[in-house]
Amino acid sequence: MNQVIETLLAHRSIRQLQDKPLTKEQVELIVASAQAASTSSYIQSYSIIGITDPAKKQRLAELAGNQNYVEKNGHFFVFCGDLYRHELAGDMEEKEVIDSIESTEKFMVMLIDTALAAQNAAIAAESLGLGICYIGGIRNQLDEVCELLNTPKRVIPLFGMAVGYPEKITDQKPRLPLAHIYHENEYEQDESVYKQQLEEYNKVISRYYYERTKGKRDDTWTSQIAGMLEKQSRMYMHDFMKKHGLNLK
Amino acid sequence: MNQVIETLLAHRSIRQLQDKPLTKEQVELIVASAQAASTSSYIQSYSIIGITDPAKKQRLAELAGNQNYVEKNGHFFVFCGDLYRHELAGDMEEKEVIDSIESTEKFMVMLIDTALAAQNAAIAAESLGLGICYIGGIRNQLDEVCELLNTPKRVIPLFGMAVGYPEKITDQKPRLPLAHIYHENEYEQDESVYKQQLEEYNKVISRYYYERTKGKRDDTWTSQIAGMLEKQSRMYMHDFMKKHGLNLK
Repeated sequence: MNQVIETLLAHRSIRQLQDKPLTKEQVELIVASAQAASTSSYIQSYSIIGITDPAKKQRLAELAGNQNYVEKNGHFFVFCGDLYRHELAGDMEEKEVIDSIESTEKFMVMLIDTALAAQNAAIAAESLGLGICYIGGIRNQLDEVCELLNTPKRVIPLFGMAVGYPEKITDQKPRLPLAHIYHENEYEQDESVYKQQLEEYNKVISRYYYERTKGKRDDTWTSQIAGMLEKQSRMYMHDFMKKHGLNLK
Repeated sequence: MNQVIETLLAHRSIRQLQDKPLTKEQVELIVASAQAASTSSYIQSYSIIGITDPAKKQRLAELAGNQNYVEKNGHFFVFCGDLYRHELAGDMEEKEVIDSIESTEKFMVMLIDTALAAQNAAIAAESLGLGICYIGGIRNQLDEVCELLNTPKRVIPLFGMAVGYPEKITDQKPRLPLAHIYHENEYEQDESVYKQQLEEYNKVISRYYYERTKGKRDDTWTSQIAGMLEKQSRMYMHDFMKKHGLNLK
């Protein structure tokens, strides 16, 4: 154990943040930390947009489903997958790069690259005593978000991150048991073992909600997840990406 | 600045690792750190396979393009996107979840979730004095990798991570300038400004390679990236994911 791992293990999403703005130095340390993450074949296929304009923040909060913490925070980052600059690199070098850029493989690289950078940003922010919350809600209405942020083709806002001084510290939600997530040498495919592990985890989660809500919430992991997946969301994404020249082939 | 940010900023990929095995305690700390990362709507859509069997490591190294560090390291992790357990959760709860699981949106969630967890693992390992290197090469021949690791449908090995005691510390490659990656309130779309920033970055990279190779390598970022994208790679990925019931709709 060390200070770094303590920071990692102490993570919880903080949804109540003070509106005290981050300093320029804090923002730059967070972005520099993001950039220090590994990047596939040096591709650096992301951009980060910091939203400080209050009107823009308010509009983004509406688009993300009226989440208060999109508006009220110390700084709001939007992490975008970015293959636009790579198209320009192709132009500059007079190379045919579009087939690659349009591939599912490079779409995956773009998503993974952006997420690695974002997680470094999250850790950096938390190490500075700040709280963070990822916001997938910006994918609810991506056409409008792209317009608001003036992103060119092949730049896709993937998720936001609200950062700020915590107003209220929340609990940590228990994760799946390590033995369920972690396999040795091959994947454990025994469906009955797998379901049994999920049943046991359900008991942990049920107790967690019971204690946290003084008996008001009765829920399990599988019911929460199955309920979430049953309600289909953002099913426009497949066509949206095609329209933006990504994940096409 | 603090110890956490120092760790983040000190990152470089380490490709020469000792074969001294990690302890069980180290592996568990790394996996627990991975699990502590944020996860979209609590979905936890990844699994991690640790490869310790020497024959399996050797085969994986072959499949990943004969990268020596896949075989020689302290521990080799394979990070898999996993929506298999969510299908089981649907079964257990008798809910119709397949349309969601097959969507591009959930494919994206799976990729982002896995990458956030992996980056926490990388940071944890580096904080323990270990070196890491991400291995995208395991996507070269995914059918064979899936067979080797016995993964069920909807579990996709996305990338590997070699971890171990560094044998040789490499240089850090300079990242794109912060002003190029980071925008305020909206994306900077002026193509000429953008290209000029890339030209300036090219000079930095050219000098970096010149100094590092004592004048032998003359390369820029745009030429490296355009060259990489011109050579199409892993173009089978689009069909592969469809076959595995992901990114379908």
